[in-house]
Amino acid sequence: MKRRITTGLLFTAMVAAPGIAQAAIDAETKVALDTLWVMVAAFLVFFMNAGFALVESGLCRAKNAVNILAKNFIVFAASSVAFWAIGFALMFGNGTDLIGLNGFFLGGADNSPAKADAYQGVFTALNWTGVPLTAKFFFQLVFAGTAATIVSGAVAERIKFGSFILFSFILVGLIYAVGGHWVWGGGWLVKMGFADFAGSTVVHSIGGWAALAGVLVLGPRLGKYAADGRINPIPGHNMTSATLGALILWLGWFGFNPGSTMEADANMIGLIALNTNMAAAAGCLSATVAAWVLLGKPDLSMILNGTLAGLVAITAGCNVVTPASSVIIGLIAGVLVVYAVLFFDRVKVDDPVGALSVHLVNGVFGTLAVGLFATDGGLFTGGGIGKTITQLVGIGAIGGLTFVLSLAAWVALKATIGIRVSAAEELEGLDTGEHGMEAYAGFVQAREMRTEVI
Amino acid sequence: MKRRITTGLLFTAMVAAPGIAQAAIDAETKVALDTLWVMVAAFLVFFMNAGFALVESGLCRAKNAVNILAKNFIVFAASSVAFWAIGFALMFGNGTDLIGLNGFFLGGADNSPAKADAYQGVFTALNWTGVPLTAKFFFQLVFAGTAATIVSGAVAERIKFGSFILFSFILVGLIYAVGGHWVWGGGWLVKMGFADFAGSTVVHSIGGWAALAGVLVLGPRLGKYAADGRINPIPGHNMTSATLGALILWLGWFGFNPGSTMEADANMIGLIALNTNMAAAAGCLSATVAAWVLLGKPDLSMILNGTLAGLVAITAGCNVVTPASSVIIGLIAGVLVVYAVLFFDRVKVDDPVGALSVHLVNGVFGTLAVGLFATDGGLFTGGGIGKTITQLVGIGAIGGLTFVLSLAAWVALKATIGIRVSAAEELEGLDTGEHGMEAYAGFVQAREMRTEVI
Amino acid sequence: MKRRITTGLLFTAMVAAPGIAQAAIDAETKVALDTLWVMVAAFLVFFMNAGFALVESGLCRAKNAVNILAKNFIVFAASSVAFWAIGFALMFGNGTDLIGLNGFFLGGADNSPAKADAYQGVFTALNWTGVPLTAKFFFQLVFAGTAATIVSGAVAERIKFGSFILFSFILVGLIYAVGGHWVWGGGWLVKMGFADFAGSTVVHSIGGWAALAGVLVLGPRLGKYAADGRINPIPGHNMTSATLGALILWLGWFGFNPGSTMEADANMIGLIALNTNMAAAAGCLSATVAAWVLLGKPDLSMILNGTLAGLVAITAGCNVVTPASSVIIGLIAGVLVVYAVLFFDRVKVDDPVGALSVHLVNGVFGTLAVGLFATDGGLFTGGGIGKTITQLVGIGAIGGLTFVLSLAAWVALKATIGIRVSAAEELEGLDTGEHGMEAYAGFVQAREMRTEVI
Repeated sequence: MKRRITTGLLFTAMVAAPGIAQAAIDAETKVALDTLWVMVAAFLVFFMNAGFALVESGLCRAKNAVNILAKNFIVFAASSVAFWAIGFALMFGNGTDLIGLNGFFLGGADNSPAKADAYQGVFTALNWTGVPLTAKFFFQLVFAGTAATIVSGAVAERIKFGSFILFSFILVGLIYAVGGHWVWGGGWLVKMGFADFAGSTVVHSIGGWAALAGVLVLGPRLGKYAADGRINPIPGHNMTSATLGALILWLGWFGFNPGSTMEADANMIGLIALNTNMAAAAGCLSATVAAWVLLGKPDLSMILNGTLAGLVAITAGCNVVTPASSVIIGLIAGVLVVYAVLFFDRVKVDDPVGALSVHLVNGVFGTLAVGLFATDGGLFTGGGIGKTITQLVGIGAIGGLTFVLSLAAWVALKATIGIRVSAAEELEGLDTGEHGMEAYAGFVQAREMRTEVI
Repeated sequence: MKRRITTGLLFTAMVAAPGIAQAAIDAETKVALDTLWVMVAAFLVFFMNAGFALVESGLCRAKNAVNILAKNFIVFAASSVAFWAIGFALMFGNGTDLIGLNGFFLGGADNSPAKADAYQGVFTALNWTGVPLTAKFFFQLVFAGTAATIVSGAVAERIKFGSFILFSFILVGLIYAVGGHWVWGGGWLVKMGFADFAGSTVVHSIGGWAALAGVLVLGPRLGKYAADGRINPIPGHNMTSATLGALILWLGWFGFNPGSTMEADANMIGLIALNTNMAAAAGCLSATVAAWVLLGKPDLSMILNGTLAGLVAITAGCNVVTPASSVIIGLIAGVLVVYAVLFFDRVKVDDPVGALSVHLVNGVFGTLAVGLFATDGGLFTGGGIGKTITQLVGIGAIGGLTFVLSLAAWVALKATIGIRVSAAEELEGLDTGEHGMEAYAGFVQAREMRTEVI
Repeated sequence: MKRRITTGLLFTAMVAAPGIAQAAIDAETKVALDTLWVMVAAFLVFFMNAGFALVESGLCRAKNAVNILAKNFIVFAASSVAFWAIGFALMFGNGTDLIGLNGFFLGGADNSPAKADAYQGVFTALNWTGVPLTAKFFFQLVFAGTAATIVSGAVAERIKFGSFILFSFILVGLIYAVGGHWVWGGGWLVKMGFADFAGSTVVHSIGGWAALAGVLVLGPRLGKYAADGRINPIPGHNMTSATLGALILWLGWFGFNPGSTMEADANMIGLIALNTNMAAAAGCLSATVAAWVLLGKPDLSMILNGTLAGLVAITAGCNVVTPASSVIIGLIAGVLVVYAVLFFDRVKVDDPVGALSVHLVNGVFGTLAVGLFATDGGLFTGGGIGKTITQLVGIGAIGGLTFVLSLAAWVALKATIGIRVSAAEELEGLDTGEHGMEAYAGFVQAREMRTEVI
């Protein structure tokens, strides 16, 4: 005891610093903890690229597998460059209510991990998280990549490889960035109270609207809708891929939603992960039942898409609803996705993997669900209609922006370099036509099946 | 400046406060650290669902792949709901030595992340870990899901989809929860000193016993055991899947075992991860040698199952043995699994993927190994026979409970809705019969091979 | 200032202890944080085994898939035992400038997580990281496993299973360990200033040189190079596998590079992850363009290998270059790999998966790039030629050591147990010959295709 006190006195007399040093260490610990969490979450979201690649290629035909895999792979590379060069600046750079204007190529002042009032730099919209700029960028980049990947599935099996890559640059570098600025970049929508925690609207419905525009400009695959009105089912070639992909996406969502805290906040992370999981589980179960009832048997692609629908739907409100509400949101999403798949086919909007039903329909529903189920001020929790109306405004604004700009981009691409492969190439498969190779060399494919579906 | 000095003076005068404030910050850091670790570990364990789906479907025939994938996928959704509604309460809720009686739907008081004596709530059995309740539940949920998944493999290629889902609800919601309560929920086994750190018994052997009951009630696949006593090998359709699945399981085990600390304890995490890896490696090598010697060639499915056997066997004692003991445990497990696979086939217990040999046999062995190898009090480390006897009691009690209840459930399901598909459907494949689709549309399958094996 | 001292005095007088206790807690927090990070990073690197297994098997023929998967799987088990028994001691144990001489079987004194001057033990070369010894070992083990896996791809489709396993023991237990000692174990290269942060040389080029020696001793696959000088393309059998594998490798690299901090250093982790990603993306894009220009179409295997090339190339310098330099390094790597693949084929060095082009060529380039692009002292950043020359010395020394020892090992294996399967087995496929099984039982393979390529 004596010794200790002596030590203490010497220590104190010399420094006073201990108090300060201590505070510094704690701040540093907090930064390290937050950064660890943000990076691990970002890695999980990055891995969703594998999930999308597998789901999308698995649900399409073998003759187009290389093309879909290549698209999904290269799209993240393209996104990395586009978001680094301009997307991040337009989305999070200081600017106006409509667009960011600073921080191209990650340039400009930034004293992160300083946060809140202590932050000084050109990315003020992200001053609420106390991690280094590199971590902020990387986390936002993996989100941006997701939006582009959603498009890939909807336009699969007939789009030109080069045109898709170009569109991805435009989407990630420009359209997503501007729409994202409105909500997450300090723009007008967040100022009016629009809430989208992890991106039901910003990521999923933007991806969905861009995909819808693409599908409308492209038209359906050859042979999908017969002249006599019959709808030809075109089964996917690899349900192992599709299932693994869906599980990887489920896993990735534990980075997507809980990671959007961008801070190691134990209570929020636990709640959000639980809500995310319960909505996924509920979506899985309700889609299974819906498919069993409507289609006669529990179709695996519906089971998978029901799960993804639950995940998309909980994304906007995962931080403000209860686990029980998450179950309800998931149950609705799972049913919605089954009806949506049938609906899009009936109106001849050909979406080979159900991307519109999952990301667009449930991105919209999930954003709306914040207004309905939020524990603080939701319509069903005694809060009146106000929040719901705000959500509708945001859904409409982002949808309008994205659809119009995407449509313009697709039309421009079509008018210039073209966006659709030739009919001969489509029949033969894009793998040979676009890439000069097969996905499964040596495996015998059924010729008759090919001719039947085309 | 003036203000600050005043503050400082006040601050000092009261002193005690800084200590407390400081302690509060540190407690928060600790909670954040522990929660980060628990969540990341839980994500890894969640990913084991993909591992099981791939191993099990890969080791079965292509005509049943959709069915197996669908089972493995939906079983986690079913588990999520069942464990949330009742399983977690029966397992960890305050109650008697035999069963938990509080906390259905995660309800009831709980002041987590308060821990130890500071904890107040209905889940006292988990008061040793200082993370939020949502994190505790999520971590335990992914374990519960694992038990159900183990059953899936053993009953594959002939079970009805709906019956399997129902059994999963019963297993996770009831049987696993009660057995788990005895060991991890403060029940009578833990009180008598039974040790099962991460679940060789609680997860793996419970899954194994439930599977054994199912296999016995179901009977073998058509054509597996010929009338003349010949055993027909039925090769798996996709060794790429099986290998990837085994690697994902190995990865997931780094969440399963080190994560069971439920706390960011550096020394324990490092030791447990190392032990886990060494046992896996040793099991891999010894199974390879055993297969080479006994079967003439190093069969890949044996290599994979040897690794999983090592992982299952180290699970109970990974926190109390040395790396060298882990190597020995793994070596034994790898040999055991090869002999077990041959044994089950000889007694006509048809387990398509070796789930019984991996999870039941090595779950039992691993639990026993704690009694033998524990550095503190193991039989081989100078501790006498006491610990080993306790382990045997636990193995027997959990085994008896699980087998009897599972048998009752399987028999009841068989007597009501039926558990086995028709012979015609089994010959045609469950994918068409149960789901109306194929796993690999467009790929030509060998007809003759089908007729040969059935 | 005055105030602080006063505060300090009062504080001290009353407590003293809390101050000390506080310091202890903070050190513990730091250890926990660092260990969490190191373990999570190690898990990601471990998962690269799955990536290599998929890339390598996917780019080879179906008839050899089981063999390649088995090799990639068992090689990590073999590495675990070899590195535990001797490799880690030779690499990181205290010893001479040429070789470590302490710490076999992880034995010997070690007071980790004590670090720097407080460290006392036989692994002084790792005293800069404050994590437990088990964590240090585990992290280094997953790196060692990677080196062995690189060899697997280059020697695929004709090597004997047993010989490959033996070589892996030699490589990981001896060759890699000695080479690694020179750079990371406190040996002569690090003393002269050679820089290789995460292993462009230590891991990737060592794997590459060992592979080159193997390929030269083995010779090309039957039918690859026709007598008339024609080069027969032998397409991979599963591009889904290859693409998923490449994405898993990309993911794993976020453990490989940022994890090599071995400390939760927020700024470094963020920068390194970003650099790693930008180089990968740039390599992907430039390889795509190069393949499109040189080969007429964007070959998917080139796209994948371009990405891996970017990753290998940024590995040495990811901590000392800017994101913009990372983009440049990646762009160069992506072009290099395409030319390298064409070059090796022209000189009849048969590398089925492009492992030499990715790991050897870009491991060398990446190491050199540190000398060129390092922000502190690089040739292109105004630092003169000195650093580059040091890098060249290291590249040459490690290359010479590895190539000579590997060649000796391969020749010795060839002279004793043999390293190449019989021509008949090679034609039939190694799966049947070495393992007695098929990878895809039930799928019809094209006979004519087999005969054409062999």
